[in-house]
Amino acid sequence: MSILVVGSVAFDNIETPFGKAQRCIGGSATYFAVSASFFTEVELVAIVGDDFTDGDLEIFHDRRVNLDGLERVRGAKTFFWSGEYGYDLNVAKTRETQLNVFADFHPKLNEKQRRAEVLFLANIHPELQMDVLHQTERPRLVALDTMNLWIATKRDALEKAFSQVDLVLINEAETRQFTSETNLIRGARAILDLGPPTIVIKRGEYGVLMITKDAAFAVPAYPLENVFDPTGAGDTFAGGFLGYLTSRKSHDERELRRAIIFGSVLASFTVEKFSLDRLREITLEDIYERYRAFRTLTHFEDFEV
Amino acid sequence: MSILVVGSVAFDNIETPFGKAQRCIGGSATYFAVSASFFTEVELVAIVGDDFTDGDLEIFHDRRVNLDGLERVRGAKTFFWSGEYGYDLNVAKTRETQLNVFADFHPKLNEKQRRAEVLFLANIHPELQMDVLHQTERPRLVALDTMNLWIATKRDALEKAFSQVDLVLINEAETRQFTSETNLIRGARAILDLGPPTIVIKRGEYGVLMITKDAAFAVPAYPLENVFDPTGAGDTFAGGFLGYLTSRKSHDERELRRAIIFGSVLASFTVEKFSLDRLREITLEDIYERYRAFRTLTHFEDFEV
Repeated sequence: MSILVVGSVAFDNIETPFGKAQRCIGGSATYFAVSASFFTEVELVAIVGDDFTDGDLEIFHDRRVNLDGLERVRGAKTFFWSGEYGYDLNVAKTRETQLNVFADFHPKLNEKQRRAEVLFLANIHPELQMDVLHQTERPRLVALDTMNLWIATKRDALEKAFSQVDLVLINEAETRQFTSETNLIRGARAILDLGPPTIVIKRGEYGVLMITKDAAFAVPAYPLENVFDPTGAGDTFAGGFLGYLTSRKSHDERELRRAIIFGSVLASFTVEKFSLDRLREITLEDIYERYRAFRTLTHFEDFEV
Repeated sequence: MSILVVGSVAFDNIETPFGKAQRCIGGSATYFAVSASFFTEVELVAIVGDDFTDGDLEIFHDRRVNLDGLERVRGAKTFFWSGEYGYDLNVAKTRETQLNVFADFHPKLNEKQRRAEVLFLANIHPELQMDVLHQTERPRLVALDTMNLWIATKRDALEKAFSQVDLVLINEAETRQFTSETNLIRGARAILDLGPPTIVIKRGEYGVLMITKDAAFAVPAYPLENVFDPTGAGDTFAGGFLGYLTSRKSHDERELRRAIIFGSVLASFTVEKFSLDRLREITLEDIYERYRAFRTLTHFEDFEV
């Protein structure tokens, strides 16, 4: 059993009201891979420059992420993002983006990657997402994430991509942007109408909403007294969510709901420290313990008349 | 068993992106009383002018709300509020407020009201809230709501009020305003430190968070495809929440959680039509049915390793 993720590995400069971090490891595929690795074998497909050192690779080695698909380009620089958050940690403000090696990212899957059971297409150009999908032997579950840029500039390609996956992961603002629906439930249904059977809407500190043709599941986020750095929370969620599913025989509603909780648990750890620092520390037992805490947080009984 | 509510009865002009309503019945005590009346006997203490007709009283008669405490002042006008909402239905913009009779509201409780089992001090001047509390024979549960105006202008009185009640109902922005804490959980704890054992934070379309010294309970809001008019949602929530509790012997964590769900259910009905139009239609069976739907919406199982 393995999950394949295609996305970015990056260096980030991050400033929040609680401190700053320079040249820390980031990128959608990084957060996803580390998070998913708690549940299953992960194949990472991404590109870095030769400024990405062997020491930087440790985070992946420590989590036994398969790096056969990580291309390291000589004489080139790794994707770089610099951003800041104000006290409203829900909104990142980008200071600078340098695509660097990422501008020429054209992933070629090897035999093993093509046979991955689950595929996560992290936020990259929707045509590139489809190119990767078409290289695979159609995994049993394909999910994609996207961003405001592609909604604004690559709408047709994105609609086509939505129609070819099993699951769309998207945030609340993007759902409204893509559908021009202010009502989130109608927005979700408009995306389901394009083909994907399931949509998972990320709402930051307000949790997650999963909508299928005949069911809805809503969970709040785990309440934290210390939120340090929200960078990567969405991709960490996706990693926990899909990593857990990869490890399960069934992907029925019951397992999807558990997966949403595991994703939320992983995301709740990520934001407690800068970069992946918190994910480096935790164990599977910590994850199980917070899952149980999630049950305590949200559980209520049927009424008695 | 009865619950006593002290607050406003008003006429509202409301405009939302989906329509407008003129001179419809509103006010915190109105929404609260109608909502609570599904579970228990309600004593309403409020003031109106003689422009409030017998026909206008029907909403209370229909729900068997006790109006002994409703003062009707000859030659004077009822409290009036005019407001609008944009597509972000979480934020009301006030166009006009006319206090009218409400400027001279000095409630005097009668014998029966003084012996109410539960007291809800809706959003009025905190000194008036304490004046009412001191007229009672200390109900078994006292809750209060407040607003940004009192936080900005009557801080000392509000702190004192918080220290004398069992339960503070407040919205998310007000929690941050009152405590200067951007982190909601820390803000909640800062308010608990003033004395009240329980704080219930209303988060609009994102649901409710209840915090006590040793527990937290979070629920999302019921997802609706048609939100027509959010006016009164908070007071309707409070009515369902406290009305249900009034009907129960125990106010332990289990019942508090059920009460949060009943409050959320009532609020989810209110916003489906203008004013109290939806609350006029529903039955207790509708409420029970949506409670069950809430369980389906939020339920997930423990994991299996």
